[in-house]
This record gives sequence, structure tokens and C-alpha cells, in this order.
Amino acid sequence: MKRDKIKVLLEEKVEKDVHICAWVRTNRAQAQFGFLNINDGSIVTNLQVVYDHDLENFAEISKFRVGTSVEVFGKVVLTPNMKQPLEVHATKIVMLGDCPEDYPIQPKRHTKEFLREVAHLRPRTNLFNSVFRIRSVAAMGIHSYFQKNGYVYVHTPLITCADCEGSDQMFKITTLDVNNLPYTEEGKIDFSKDLFGKQAWITGSGQLQGETFAMAFSDIYTFGPTFRTENSNTQTHANEFWMIEPEMAFCDLEGLMDIEEEMLKYVINYVLENAPAEIDFCDQFVEKGLKEKLLNIVNAKFVRISHHDVVDLLLNSGKKWEFIPTYEDDIAKEHERFLTEHFNGPVFVTNWPKDIKAWYMKVNPDGKTVAAVDLIVPKAGELMGGSQREENLDVLLERIKELHVDVSNMDWYLDTRRYGGCVHSGFGMGFERLIMYLTGIDNIRDSIPYPRTPKNCEY
Amino acid sequence: MKRDKIKVLLEEKVEKDVHICAWVRTNRAQAQFGFLNINDGSIVTNLQVVYDHDLENFAEISKFRVGTSVEVFGKVVLTPNMKQPLEVHATKIVMLGDCPEDYPIQPKRHTKEFLREVAHLRPRTNLFNSVFRIRSVAAMGIHSYFQKNGYVYVHTPLITCADCEGSDQMFKITTLDVNNLPYTEEGKIDFSKDLFGKQAWITGSGQLQGETFAMAFSDIYTFGPTFRTENSNTQTHANEFWMIEPEMAFCDLEGLMDIEEEMLKYVINYVLENAPAEIDFCDQFVEKGLKEKLLNIVNAKFVRISHHDVVDLLLNSGKKWEFIPTYEDDIAKEHERFLTEHFNGPVFVTNWPKDIKAWYMKVNPDGKTVAAVDLIVPKAGELMGGSQREENLDVLLERIKELHVDVSNMDWYLDTRRYGGCVHSGFGMGFERLIMYLTGIDNIRDSIPYPRTPKNCEY
Repeated sequence: MKRDKIKVLLEEKVEKDVHICAWVRTNRAQAQFGFLNINDGSIVTNLQVVYDHDLENFAEISKFRVGTSVEVFGKVVLTPNMKQPLEVHATKIVMLGDCPEDYPIQPKRHTKEFLREVAHLRPRTNLFNSVFRIRSVAAMGIHSYFQKNGYVYVHTPLITCADCEGSDQMFKITTLDVNNLPYTEEGKIDFSKDLFGKQAWITGSGQLQGETFAMAFSDIYTFGPTFRTENSNTQTHANEFWMIEPEMAFCDLEGLMDIEEEMLKYVINYVLENAPAEIDFCDQFVEKGLKEKLLNIVNAKFVRISHHDVVDLLLNSGKKWEFIPTYEDDIAKEHERFLTEHFNGPVFVTNWPKDIKAWYMKVNPDGKTVAAVDLIVPKAGELMGGSQREENLDVLLERIKELHVDVSNMDWYLDTRRYGGCVHSGFGMGFERLIMYLTGIDNIRDSIPYPRTPKNCEY
Repeated sequence: MKRDKIKVLLEEKVEKDVHICAWVRTNRAQAQFGFLNINDGSIVTNLQVVYDHDLENFAEISKFRVGTSVEVFGKVVLTPNMKQPLEVHATKIVMLGDCPEDYPIQPKRHTKEFLREVAHLRPRTNLFNSVFRIRSVAAMGIHSYFQKNGYVYVHTPLITCADCEGSDQMFKITTLDVNNLPYTEEGKIDFSKDLFGKQAWITGSGQLQGETFAMAFSDIYTFGPTFRTENSNTQTHANEFWMIEPEMAFCDLEGLMDIEEEMLKYVINYVLENAPAEIDFCDQFVEKGLKEKLLNIVNAKFVRISHHDVVDLLLNSGKKWEFIPTYEDDIAKEHERFLTEHFNGPVFVTNWPKDIKAWYMKVNPDGKTVAAVDLIVPKAGELMGGSQREENLDVLLERIKELHVDVSNMDWYLDTRRYGGCVHSGFGMGFERLIMYLTGIDNIRDSIPYPRTPKNCEY
């Protein structure tokens, strides 16, 4: 028998017989009748079920505790003059699974810290029901944007034996018995005995492999989990998170910014359309003005300004900076805040000093800067980082030498510059950062189902 | 300037001015004019570009080698009486990136073994252009099916410290300096010094975490990479692959099969509609009759039969089996083949002997079997495996004891049975197996961009 979903009933607003399975959120029993508020997770909104003393198990229902799973048969009745648009008058209610008194998720305000301690139960709260549905809808919005524009979704590998990223930032993986390791004659661990015959890591990016696919499909994107070993306990760092990395052939820095801007607006609109109740919830209880903030982004024309001009602007602003801006250095949080306030919207900062950026970025004609771009958004700072890639093999090899990048196993990557290479660009977006932006949640631990952070790997 | 995509031009069939960036697949130059076949990766089909000696760089174009990246300006001309529906008459052609003579991907038939040696270049062949686009489109089909049915996409963690799956099948991960490991007084590695403060692995399944989210959202699915350490060199094993794991509350075994059947048909239709040229290519060059095979699945009513009845059928078939079927054992490949031929379509085999299935599966009233189901499809064997879960805490604890499962850190999982538990079910589908089925590719190494198998972790 098909279940009716509460979300669908609330959208249809049609009086009809229904069959719902859900969990009790509150139960107010009176002498002659009672009200169950139930939620099936299809929408953050609860459904009110009215039960009458005519029901043969009325006494039993009256005692249903919060968290109990129930099956409800009944009829939708529209209630246009009341707070909720409709309710269900029950003809039969069956308990499916009991819930004891000690159930931690009671209908009261819990702190987010407490809810992290019961992360397996927190999706049963309105807050996390909203956050994790928005997460799901945003993920679909991203796929939807790229697929409708003809991008190919590429599953780049996570296990890698190339350590050009700097292996100290990657988790080592092994199948060896760690308490009985094989050693070489030189006293080093003998990784030739390991599954892949050499040392292996879990990678922090699929960009380089993504570039090889962009040289065949023109437009590709990745969307998958990513790992960093950073021993950093902040609100924005996690050791496991999801990332989106699009890569476009025949695309320069200006084209890259067009795509970043279009994609972000598309995803915001997608979430506003497909999770309106959850956005409203976050607007009301997480970040006042959230919806307006998001609509402002959709309607904004993103400013484009070079790092050099940003520094000029900061120096001439008359502000006293904690970190004095220079033409050679990164900009600080206080500068980002000033920029988005000054321009009243998102800002692309382009053409960064090459010494603070990665080896694969396109060196500009000035020889000092690279065609990199960070997108800075109001309230959240950097949301995406990207660049045009250095497509000239000689210049690229020069940079590799300068920066001592180990490309000993990377001939395959350099082949993208040997065989029909072209101007190409890509960017990366941390998915959790986007979720925090879309929900107003201020700690990355609350944007991902089971966060992994230093000393914290439960569930 | 926006590029025109070849796929769009072939669909539109409109005479107009165009600007295309692509790679040369063949170049046939004659005295007065020449033909470039170019591909931009938007569709497996090449576009024919006619260039005339009027072009100022005609001599140069005549020498463009295979693999060169080019920018073409010109006009679409419909050619309804020729093999291809249209061609482009060039007004300007610019070389973007040269390609030397030694380019490995020449316009001839390469073996799949050779192409694995240049896995970074193989998406530039028609075969892998087709396979990896079908992979992308199928992934979108899966997301599309679940999202339109109200499922929540859950990113379950990959890093885990619980080893209830059997830690010998999981990769160990660490941030410790492996050539300078810290030891405890007992001479064991001191994992308290590791990033998470204890030993950690990369998991092979998100099912258990998925179940906790199904108890909040009713219907959820995962779709992400998965890792197995199996030292197995077969055509169907890889150490890194992608998996889909849906989990539905208020859903029994029959409901589970309904969903599996509906989803598979949806995804096949989605691929047939969104990658028709690539399916045609695979039908012609990889598996003759592929399209008919897929259409047969869409139109089939999947048979449902218990393991017990399967064994009866096999024993009474009059066939001589290499492996004699028994009521206690798994069925063999030869039995699967017989079943799909006998029923002329996909077969759900249900209610398996509990001793050969996992601890979390629902024990049937007979006490001997569990409510598990494998979906077996013609030519490929098992495509999905699932079960109703044991929702009764006492029975589950009994099974955990019987099978010596380590649930010392698993109270969170058992809470799904304590707090408003309910009948629920889920299944897993290996994504590469689906891709092999959808393309006719017979080796998993050719279904995933950069395969990881024992002794093989390049790129």
C-alpha cells in the first residue's frame, strides 16, 4: 500500500482519504479527542491529526509518546481559517514502534552542541530536518545545473599514488597489518607488499584527473568526498567534506567567472523553489534575513576586480586595518568583509600574486600574477576558488621546477598540454561552505551528517 | 563568446552561423578543399567541417594532425541526402593547440587493454566517450528518480572508527609518520596519537548511517565512492567503486522490490532518452542487441521467487549442474543464467537461508530464512542486493551474538530500534555493475575513469 507523504498533501490541499506513516512530534490528549502532530520527514512542517474517542484504541493513542512511529488512516480536511491549511481526521491509528520516556529528542529547544552528541537522532529535529533536506536539494541543484548545460559528471579516483599535492596533507592508506609491518633492507616499510604495490593516499582533489577529461568532453564536473588531514579545530574545518570541481576547455578567466556566477544563482533559485518550507524555517530560527540575503545574490551583478585594485581600494579606504594589505599577500577576513559591504554584493577578486597561488595556474603577461579568481560573498567570505590553467607546457614546467612540485608520476597530466591542449579553466567549491551559506548554519559540524574532525570520528 | 556545441547543432538542424571549439578526429585534404571531422565531446558523433582553398591558411589547415584543438567559425548547411544530417562550411579555422605525430589515439581500432595504458587519453575515443557519458547520464538518472520521489540524498561518512563490517576488508587510514610510528607500552601502535585519537578505516558501506536518516526522513539514498581491500583480479572487482544505497522506512520486502524494479526501469529510460547516440554506438560496437536488451527490461514484469522455490526449480530442471543447488547455499552463476533464461527476464530471488546472509537482515517467521532479495538480470547476474532489516531489537541482538558482530561502538545504530523503530528496507547497487550492464562493457576497468585494482593505482 502506497503511503501518502505529508509534503504532497500540503501542496495538493485536497480533501481525500489518506494513509500516512510518520513519527509523533507532540500528543495533546483531552477527554473526548486529541491531537497528534506527526512528521514523516518529507517536509519540515508537521501534520496535525485529530483523533476522537470513537476510535477503539483512543485510550492507547492518548498515551503515545514523542518519537513513536505510527500509521494513520483518515481523511484530509481543509482548515483555511486556521494556522495550518489542513488537518487529518483519523479513522484508525496504529502504533508501529514504541518510544520510551528517555528519548533524547523532546519537543523543546536543544542546543546544537547537545545535538552533535546524538548526531544519529538530530535529523529528527526541525533544524536538522531542514538543513539536511536543503543539503540534498542543493546537491540536486548542482547536478541539475551542470547536466542541463551538457557537462559530464566524472568520478575521479580518491585513492592515489601520486603525491604532487603534498602527501603530508593526505591520509595514508594501507592494507598491511599495522602491528606486523614488513620492512625493506633499508628499514623502511615495504610498501611493495601493499595492495597497490606502493604507498597510497586518499586525495584531496580530483582537479588534475578532471582536466584530462575536460580535454575530451570540453565541460566536466566532479562532485564527491574529499579529505584533508589538517589538525584544525575551527568552525569551518572538517577532515572529510564534499567538493565540486568543474573544469572547462576553451574557457578563460572571464568565462570561468560567468559560469561561477550563473551556477550559484541557479542553485540558490533551485533551493528556494524546492525547499521553501525549510528555507523559511532557517530564515526564522537560524539566520534572520536569510531569504533576503539569498535573493540579493540572485539579483546581484557580481563585481570583478583585480587583487591589485583591491589593495589600492583597501589602502585608500581610510580604514585602520589589523592586517595591512599588500600587493604580494593574501587578503584577510576584515578585507573581504569590507569588499562585500563596499560593493554591496559578491565580489570576484582576480589576478593574484603568483607566489601565493598554485603551480598549475596561468601566469599572466605581467609575469607576477596568475589568472586566479576567488569569489567572495557577503557574510561568508570565500565561496569558490578557481583559475585559468597554464596551458603552455614550457611555462608550466618552469613553474613546477620553481615550486619543487614532484611530478615524477605525472606525465599523464602533462600530456594535456602536449596533445591538442587549449585554454581551460576550473574552480572548486566546498559543498559544506555552500550549505552553511544556504542555511545560515555557522559550524561545519552542523552542515554534514556525521562530521569528522580531529579527535572526533563517532558513528 | 559562447561556443556552439555539436550535440545541440545536431539536434536543432538549423542553418546558421556557428562558433565551435573541438578536437580534430580526421583530416582529409584535397587540392581545392578538405574535410575536418571534429569532436567537442558533447556527443559521440563527429561534425564534418568543409574548408575551402579560399581560406587564407588553407595550406596550414590541410596539415592539421589528429588530436589538434581547433576553433571553427562557419555556417551550418543541412545535407539531408547525405550520411550526416548537416555539415559546417568554414569561414575561418584557427589552430588552438598542436598535436604531434606520436599522439597515441589515432583513427583506428585500439584494444581496450592498450587504452587502459593511456587511461588519461581514452575518453577521446568514441568508445570511452560513449561509456563515460552514459555513466554521467545514468548517475543523473539515479538522482532524478530518487529526488522526484522525495528521497533525501545523504552523504554518509567514509572515514569510520567502527569495524563492525570486518576491519580486514577495509583500508586502514592514518596521519602518523609510518616510518616513525609511536608505540604504546604494550608494543602496539599508539593510535591515540593519530588524528582521530584511535584507529580509523575507510568504510565499504553507508547503510548503517543511512538507516539512522531513514528513521527521520522516511526515504533516503546514498550515492558515493566505496572501498574494498579484496586482493582479487577479476573482470568485476575493483578496490574503489561507486555505490547507491537507498533505505526506506515503513517499507517491507515487497515494497522494496517494487522500488528496485521501478528505479531500474526509470534509469534505463532516462539513459535511452538522454544518451541515444552513445547507446547506439555501444549497440553497434560493444554488445550487439544492447538496446533491445534494455528495452526488454523496461517492458518486463520482474519475476519474484523464493530461494527455496528456485532450488526446487533447479533440481527439477533436468539439467546437469556443475554446482548442485541446495536449500542452504548460495546459487551459482550457472543457476542465475538458467533462471533469467527460464523466466525470460529479470528475477527477484527472495528469502535466503539466514546463515549465508548479513546480521542485520529480517529473520522470517520460519526462523531459517531472512527477508533478503537479490535482483538477477539477464546476461549480468546480480545487479542489486537488499533486505528488509530486523527491526526487533531483541531478535537483532540475538543475531549479533550468534554472528559475533562487534557492536561495541554501535549503540547509535541500535537506537534506531529503540526509539520509534519500524519496518524498513534497503538495497545496494554497485554503480559500475549498472554501467557495464547499460553499455555492454565486460570489464569493470573500462567502466570507471581511473580504475584501482591490486597492483594498479596509476594516474
